[in-house]
Amino acid sequence: MLPMSTITKNKIVLGIDPGLGRIGYAVVSGSLSSPKLIVVGCLETSSQLVHGERLLAIAQSVSTIIKKYHPSVVAIERLYFSKNVKTALAVAEARGALMLELTRQKCKVIELSPQAVKLAATGVGNADKIMIQKMLKLIFKLKEVPKPDDAADALAVALCGLAN
Amino acid sequence: MLPMSTITKNKIVLGIDPGLGRIGYAVVSGSLSSPKLIVVGCLETSSQLVHGERLLAIAQSVSTIIKKYHPSVVAIERLYFSKNVKTALAVAEARGALMLELTRQKCKVIELSPQAVKLAATGVGNADKIMIQKMLKLIFKLKEVPKPDDAADALAVALCGLAN
Repeated sequence: MLPMSTITKNKIVLGIDPGLGRIGYAVVSGSLSSPKLIVVGCLETSSQLVHGERLLAIAQSVSTIIKKYHPSVVAIERLYFSKNVKTALAVAEARGALMLELTRQKCKVIELSPQAVKLAATGVGNADKIMIQKMLKLIFKLKEVPKPDDAADALAVALCGLAN
Repeated sequence: MLPMSTITKNKIVLGIDPGLGRIGYAVVSGSLSSPKLIVVGCLETSSQLVHGERLLAIAQSVSTIIKKYHPSVVAIERLYFSKNVKTALAVAEARGALMLELTRQKCKVIELSPQAVKLAATGVGNADKIMIQKMLKLIFKLKEVPKPDDAADALAVALCGLAN
């Protein structure tokens, strides 16, 4: 048995930015005051695949990440009203497939509001994308902001997950 | 080996009306001109469950239906813009979980537009709910319209699936 302090220090969070074509992911450990980046990236699914096959590809890729990094918590943003409803519905379908897979894999899932994610990264609940990315670069001591935006978004989600 | 004519006659379609709280389903066989109802109903998930558990309950229930009736085709409606975006996002998440499960179960899935479903049930692409339900009652020689509406909607989707 590990002492409780060690378990707390070794908290591993997988942050996910859901999408149908691009799914950002980031695995971090440590704490909100001393976070460590393990991996950050972006999965892509081909629009050549039929819809169900894209969702299956997403579920299988996320399952592989879970099996590799064994996150103690998976953090994922809640969806809110979007101006582009067609895109929002596609993202929501992908999110539903992800939530099903995470539940199947018996992950502890926390759903975060966009405000909470912004607050964790910047201290401001309505920070813009550029401000968040600058702060992520500072916090994780990165040479460059993770690209594409989906990867950076996932890193912000993972960071917020460390605090929850 | 069954002769091809027998296989065609024995086409079995599962129609699904996706939702998070209520999921309509209907299994039909035969053809569009001579359809037979096998079963129609509505699955419900408790709002007491956490989100991922609701999606898992949906996936598991639909999986049970598939294993019981062995549909040759699963028909499901495409989602379109909705006035109530919050509800639309919840339905889209449930639909994503369903699509993932159907793909996992190696089902042949056809995605139908609401217009195609209305057309199959009534001959009119912009028919209202009452007109569709009356036609379903006639077509399937039912004493009553299936209740709740989700079940009747799924029956219309299954009927349209017979033609595709």
